[in-house]
Amino acid sequence: MKNLLVEKNSGPNIIVKVRDIAIGDKEPVFISGPCSVESYDKMMAIGKELKNIGIHILRGGAFKPRTSPYDFQGLHMEGIKILHEVGKSYNLPIVTEIMDARDIEKCIPYIDMIQVGSRNMYNYTLLKELGKSSLPILLKRGISATVSEWLYAAEYIMSSGNSQVVLCERGIRTFETYTRNTLDLNSVAVIKENYRLPIIVDPSHGTGKRELVESMSLASIACGAHGLMIESHICPDNAVSDARQTVNMDTLKSIVNKSKVLNDIL
Amino acid sequence: MKNLLVEKNSGPNIIVKVRDIAIGDKEPVFISGPCSVESYDKMMAIGKELKNIGIHILRGGAFKPRTSPYDFQGLHMEGIKILHEVGKSYNLPIVTEIMDARDIEKCIPYIDMIQVGSRNMYNYTLLKELGKSSLPILLKRGISATVSEWLYAAEYIMSSGNSQVVLCERGIRTFETYTRNTLDLNSVAVIKENYRLPIIVDPSHGTGKRELVESMSLASIACGAHGLMIESHICPDNAVSDARQTVNMDTLKSIVNKSKVLNDIL
Amino acid sequence: MKNLLVEKNSGPNIIVKVRDIAIGDKEPVFISGPCSVESYDKMMAIGKELKNIGIHILRGGAFKPRTSPYDFQGLHMEGIKILHEVGKSYNLPIVTEIMDARDIEKCIPYIDMIQVGSRNMYNYTLLKELGKSSLPILLKRGISATVSEWLYAAEYIMSSGNSQVVLCERGIRTFETYTRNTLDLNSVAVIKENYRLPIIVDPSHGTGKRELVESMSLASIACGAHGLMIESHICPDNAVSDARQTVNMDTLKSIVNKSKVLNDIL
Amino acid sequence: MKNLLVEKNSGPNIIVKVRDIAIGDKEPVFISGPCSVESYDKMMAIGKELKNIGIHILRGGAFKPRTSPYDFQGLHMEGIKILHEVGKSYNLPIVTEIMDARDIEKCIPYIDMIQVGSRNMYNYTLLKELGKSSLPILLKRGISATVSEWLYAAEYIMSSGNSQVVLCERGIRTFETYTRNTLDLNSVAVIKENYRLPIIVDPSHGTGKRELVESMSLASIACGAHGLMIESHICPDNAVSDARQTVNMDTLKSIVNKSKVLNDIL
Repeated sequence: MKNLLVEKNSGPNIIVKVRDIAIGDKEPVFISGPCSVESYDKMMAIGKELKNIGIHILRGGAFKPRTSPYDFQGLHMEGIKILHEVGKSYNLPIVTEIMDARDIEKCIPYIDMIQVGSRNMYNYTLLKELGKSSLPILLKRGISATVSEWLYAAEYIMSSGNSQVVLCERGIRTFETYTRNTLDLNSVAVIKENYRLPIIVDPSHGTGKRELVESMSLASIACGAHGLMIESHICPDNAVSDARQTVNMDTLKSIVNKSKVLNDIL
Repeated sequence: MKNLLVEKNSGPNIIVKVRDIAIGDKEPVFISGPCSVESYDKMMAIGKELKNIGIHILRGGAFKPRTSPYDFQGLHMEGIKILHEVGKSYNLPIVTEIMDARDIEKCIPYIDMIQVGSRNMYNYTLLKELGKSSLPILLKRGISATVSEWLYAAEYIMSSGNSQVVLCERGIRTFETYTRNTLDLNSVAVIKENYRLPIIVDPSHGTGKRELVESMSLASIACGAHGLMIESHICPDNAVSDARQTVNMDTLKSIVNKSKVLNDIL
Repeated sequence: MKNLLVEKNSGPNIIVKVRDIAIGDKEPVFISGPCSVESYDKMMAIGKELKNIGIHILRGGAFKPRTSPYDFQGLHMEGIKILHEVGKSYNLPIVTEIMDARDIEKCIPYIDMIQVGSRNMYNYTLLKELGKSSLPILLKRGISATVSEWLYAAEYIMSSGNSQVVLCERGIRTFETYTRNTLDLNSVAVIKENYRLPIIVDPSHGTGKRELVESMSLASIACGAHGLMIESHICPDNAVSDARQTVNMDTLKSIVNKSKVLNDIL
Repeated sequence: MKNLLVEKNSGPNIIVKVRDIAIGDKEPVFISGPCSVESYDKMMAIGKELKNIGIHILRGGAFKPRTSPYDFQGLHMEGIKILHEVGKSYNLPIVTEIMDARDIEKCIPYIDMIQVGSRNMYNYTLLKELGKSSLPILLKRGISATVSEWLYAAEYIMSSGNSQVVLCERGIRTFETYTRNTLDLNSVAVIKENYRLPIIVDPSHGTGKRELVESMSLASIACGAHGLMIESHICPDNAVSDARQTVNMDTLKSIVNKSKVLNDIL
């Protein structure tokens, strides 16, 4: 690895702007919302709560990569438009996953940041296309990707012309079955020490259990993460997907408040 | 998992035809060729040798998913056309990887089987498109995919309309660094015992070391694999990619001959 | 790693003698018996069957390392003596696990080979003591040991004075949950290619499922294993421990016979 | 798992006393010292610094479990006595690893807490003996142990009569090679949520790189760890073992101070 764009010697640390929200600066950024966009009404109700809590960016899945082809695959463009409406109503930028390079262009008018999901981190076709996009990219770590492979995935985007990349640690696959994934916070310290890109943490996928999300959120901020992405819902038990790891609004509020206090003393 | 198309209770075992070559029947099928298509001349020289040895299907990479964007990415359509020419000259069906759903249509006239590489096993966009294709699919196991996830990836293709799917075990990622991957032959026994799809093994990626390829080829046949996919080259040390795991023609010949003898006594 | 006793450049390949049975020579050696010694009567009934089938060495656990302290821990010295009686009756050498260095001396008169279990592969205290013993050692690979660490464990025994060490691949821990462990047959090829010690395979622990044991036994022989260790029982479903991976006598007979035929053509 | 001694329903949370130091209470406990006891003079110099920094317990290895039998194996009883002298001089309790059940009795007069190293977490012989000891036990997680296996290892000690057990997360083995181990802080949250035992973290082994130790120390405290065990040395580059992950006294001081501030706001 020599003279990569991701490396510190290629320039100053990168701060990614999602509309007026800066990721990679001093204040931690909070991204939240349900795993899947379920309906306009629920999304509006959730958006309102998130805004009150101080969430900066709204997330929600419209194109859902599911292990089984028979599981709910998302609302697609209808979901994208719902996100857009809610974002407009509450002045919240939108981040959502795109899985198909052919969907990029038609989604761009509605969203503010594009997420590459774990399953698509090695999808170099998609990465190269995103490199030509003008939107910032949230690049989740592959389910079993090494830090080096993850950085090269960012490099694919950056070398195609888009340096607005935020890394997102979301846990890796190990032998441990107690938690859904093993949240690898070492990676946060590694990125902060050696690379230019901002890094945030997704403790929802990183643990798979809602009762562990607050602890791991604080751990993430303590080791230097630039933000958190947390699955939340007004009624977590009824969430269409990932219910087990989705927190309610009270827990989310507590996480946001404690994270800010913690960040201030670091 | 209930009533999946991959399951034995959904129908008889599937035999996949690649032109006149049957995968999943009694005789093991041998697929071989270089990691990357390098040039017309080299590919012709390799094709000639493979035909003499009794290889059934010619492989070669034209679209190469490389960890680094700065590594050789393949000859793309030029490589596809070279493969086609060599296949025609030696009456060898062609299998090659496609990474981008948008490339399927233009490649179909030149090839006989489409490979889904390990990095794209979770690329559901691609899988669904391949399900609409008329060509048989070689579905490699994801780098860290469970057998269950792999079967669901096949289910994505099958439920989209294409049941001509061959599984390919190619090793999984573990803590062991002595070998490039850990070849999981348990998966062969599991698939044969419980599922309808043919399964072959790639001992080249499964070991990462050419001196281990023959032993693991024989082990694969012994536990019931329907065939082998082996990286070979007329001059392995000069191979543009994967040189360390590429065997020469003498070793390949030995593997084919011993595998046949072994298969006959099972 | 330079000039280690395990390396080929330190001397000829090692053939380990367990009474008159040679492990590491041309003929594969078959070790079998129940996970736990349960009673004198059952052990005698099993021993009789094993002798008829052509098993060379009788195994059975008297000191059982169990994950829970509340599970059956074995019959201890009573079990050792039962093994001894059965071995004497059917002229079968005995291999059994010892977990405590303080038990070695008192067990030696009753047994012919000492097994180091997976959980104790890193127990250097035990390894050093076994290095002073006159009995051959069966050294199972640690649950998540690299090949290199496993070889160093053998080196601990050998450098303490005992070079009669047989390696036993028994599967490693990975993310895959379909099988109990991932049987790493690459390790067999690696050991045969580069090191002096005989290596056998335990497909019972390597798969955790009895219906997969025969396939993986044949794969093991095909890639060069010097023998097999297989958990068997006259009534597998009633086995006190490891029932799910224990084969019956018919399956065991089939494995032995097919393995011999396969070994002859290699 | 029902009615285990480690479970919350078996009694109140356990606070372990190492002389007058309470582990499991509100204040985080700091354990530090070199990987290996090297000499009396160096140990005295280190002890003096540690006392000044506010370290509560002195660590140092006298019995060293090394992968290779040819590496430095520790000073054994000489090392134990050095630890004792230094501890007496600076009023610091001593924790050190014991690998052989036969060494327990002779070490007890010199030390205050016994460490079970990662390689011996499955050494049930040793665990049962430690269960009969009157000293508190520091039980490191096995290199690839599940949380469940780790808890059962504690149960072995507790069911043998000693409930003074502190768990120590030290990273698990994964595919990632950037760091020596993958520090699994999820386990801290899991233990705190569901079990009675105190848990501390060893970020030195958990990362393997000294520049990552401070960040991961703070993350550990943030998710609720009851303390830290950190390898330190007055001259880390000259440490006989684990130099790469050993911090100097300035870094250690910074970790202690920041951890206290952080703990106060949680």
